[in-house]
Amino acid sequence: MTTESKSFGEFSPPVRLLLGPGPSNLHPRVVRALSAPILGYLDPYFLTLLDETMELLRALFRTANRLTFPLSGPGTAGMEAVLANMVEAGDRVAVGVNGLFGQRMAEIVRRHGGELIEIAAAWGSPIDPAQIEEVLKTRGPIKAVALIHGETSTGVLQPLSEIGRLCREHQALFIVDTVTSLGGAAVEVDSWHIDLCYSGTQKCLNAPPGLSPLTLSDRALEAIKARKSPCGVWYLDLKLIEQYWSRGRVYHHTPPTLLIYALREALRVILEEGLEARFDRHRRAALALYSGLAALGFELHVPTPYRLPSLTTVKIPSGLDEARTRQSLLEDHNIEIGAGLGPLRGKVWRIGLMGQNATLATVLTLLSALEQILRAQGRLEKPGASLQTAEKAFLDA
Amino acid sequence: MTTESKSFGEFSPPVRLLLGPGPSNLHPRVVRALSAPILGYLDPYFLTLLDETMELLRALFRTANRLTFPLSGPGTAGMEAVLANMVEAGDRVAVGVNGLFGQRMAEIVRRHGGELIEIAAAWGSPIDPAQIEEVLKTRGPIKAVALIHGETSTGVLQPLSEIGRLCREHQALFIVDTVTSLGGAAVEVDSWHIDLCYSGTQKCLNAPPGLSPLTLSDRALEAIKARKSPCGVWYLDLKLIEQYWSRGRVYHHTPPTLLIYALREALRVILEEGLEARFDRHRRAALALYSGLAALGFELHVPTPYRLPSLTTVKIPSGLDEARTRQSLLEDHNIEIGAGLGPLRGKVWRIGLMGQNATLATVLTLLSALEQILRAQGRLEKPGASLQTAEKAFLDA
Repeated sequence: MTTESKSFGEFSPPVRLLLGPGPSNLHPRVVRALSAPILGYLDPYFLTLLDETMELLRALFRTANRLTFPLSGPGTAGMEAVLANMVEAGDRVAVGVNGLFGQRMAEIVRRHGGELIEIAAAWGSPIDPAQIEEVLKTRGPIKAVALIHGETSTGVLQPLSEIGRLCREHQALFIVDTVTSLGGAAVEVDSWHIDLCYSGTQKCLNAPPGLSPLTLSDRALEAIKARKSPCGVWYLDLKLIEQYWSRGRVYHHTPPTLLIYALREALRVILEEGLEARFDRHRRAALALYSGLAALGFELHVPTPYRLPSLTTVKIPSGLDEARTRQSLLEDHNIEIGAGLGPLRGKVWRIGLMGQNATLATVLTLLSALEQILRAQGRLEKPGASLQTAEKAFLDA
Repeated sequence: MTTESKSFGEFSPPVRLLLGPGPSNLHPRVVRALSAPILGYLDPYFLTLLDETMELLRALFRTANRLTFPLSGPGTAGMEAVLANMVEAGDRVAVGVNGLFGQRMAEIVRRHGGELIEIAAAWGSPIDPAQIEEVLKTRGPIKAVALIHGETSTGVLQPLSEIGRLCREHQALFIVDTVTSLGGAAVEVDSWHIDLCYSGTQKCLNAPPGLSPLTLSDRALEAIKARKSPCGVWYLDLKLIEQYWSRGRVYHHTPPTLLIYALREALRVILEEGLEARFDRHRRAALALYSGLAALGFELHVPTPYRLPSLTTVKIPSGLDEARTRQSLLEDHNIEIGAGLGPLRGKVWRIGLMGQNATLATVLTLLSALEQILRAQGRLEKPGASLQTAEKAFLDA
């Protein structure tokens, strides 16, 4: 039988509760937006949607930056776009490396010919601002400082508010990855003096993967326009892409129309809730999770002040078969959580409470499933205790 | 009022018949697939969908190539992926330039440090195989020859069947862009000896934009693995991406889950119809369009043997306000057609009959709308004649 005559049949994916590192579940309104009639990329109606999406993204990033738009690609494309447009051969770029995504930034800086200055910390600790200051003072001129706000591989939330000011003092541009934080924790592009900031749609925004919301300060745009060599990646060349998003609507590539519909709707949902209310919900849901896990005897990987509410890393207790337990969560309970990466492989789980999944109900669903699995392994001391503890923490928060 | 409190309201895009250069309209089954529950990118159910999508793409590309998958990005990302992975500094690459997308390939080769050999032809003519042979014989060694199969800017279908053999004889890799041809005209990756072939999903496949189906021969993969320098674009590094799609499922970036659902369904629809039946439908719909346009006094831009059935360029008669007419088609009839690009701006329209839009009914809808507009301008001689002619051409074809 040839493939042409072979039919793989209807597909009917199981309904999972996605509590891994992303994608998260979609809001029903976002799903509905995906089925709206498709338009051409120069249709006046579509161009209005683009403008509205840019305006909504500015509110989310807390910025007045004119060039604030969803790049056509996931967060990794956003990361490369920002670095490829910023880095020319020989440019000195300082990158905070305390997890997989910092490592990835470092690798991309190298690929584009940058002179990399790594500022390292352990996987689970933040980058020390004093070290950044030291680098800016002693190893300048530094073209840019790049940090991960929410490290998806470790669950660390990097404090940022004072670093942008340091960068300004030393004429360095400030690049921040907010893939796992945007929409789940405060991101203040303008008041934190962030020059290039990108994110992803499939984490705390509850939109499908495939777009990278991105914002650039005028300083960043000037730096891009002052390059001596063209950007190394034509597809991600922001000088060209800008001409579609904010000037004469010059065709560069066909944008993923339906993903933009979905993002616009996701942003409306977010801003209707209100950013502060949303961040508070993430914070309280995370506290409920921490308490519930503690009641089950689990310990968290990241110290209190640096925990990313949307992604929690929890240590695997000795004797627990982490892969089998994760598999049982997925197969018997339709709950996805993430495994550890790199040096944390086999040592932690990564539990995402992102966007609409950041609720007490979600936490209770996960804890109850965990209790059932642990009980079957003879590892549960007090059934229901984690649920009680989690609810109390949520109510007290 | 802050943006946070501002609501842009529900959106309700008009229902357009998309007869421009793409995107085309989606098949209803494709729309339905988009609303299936989202899964994590390592979910066993999702991984099965990936394998099935690869298998369906192999049937569409007519190839046995193991690495045949949808790249996360539109056709332009596919173009850059193929070139960025193939070209190292100083590599000599011959590019056929007879339209906007050939120009784009040439520019991307330059950005990646390649030594460009342009093989030019007029916008509306194909590239002459004798010129390619001449280049291969006299200017070697040539690392790769790159051609556009269906030039979306001109409506030319490039004959390909003998060029792959020439490339093999001269140890050059053969790169082909099938963005506007795949699914609408024969593409025979294996028997035409194509080494790297990429396409888009939003043209003859009737899936949403955002993915670039891509296939690589083992020769191409070996050339990539034999590179001395790493690929200049981390996001598009096929050596890394391959590890997710065909080996250990190593995470590289989050793929656009829902677009893959949609593509899989679009491919099922296509293969259920059968490729030969589909190509024949495209051919007959195009013949109907040609005849109908002729009856209205329009001339086509491309000579008969080189016409791309899925995209027709038609010359603007003198005295006709092309922009106003296009606008009326869009606003009064909800039909999108495309303007000319580059040297063809203001001189041609680009009319796409792609995938499910390649039908007699679509052609009649467009011709009737054109008749109404021309009549209002006092430019219609025999009302209904174009419809009659188009139907006859379709039935006789």
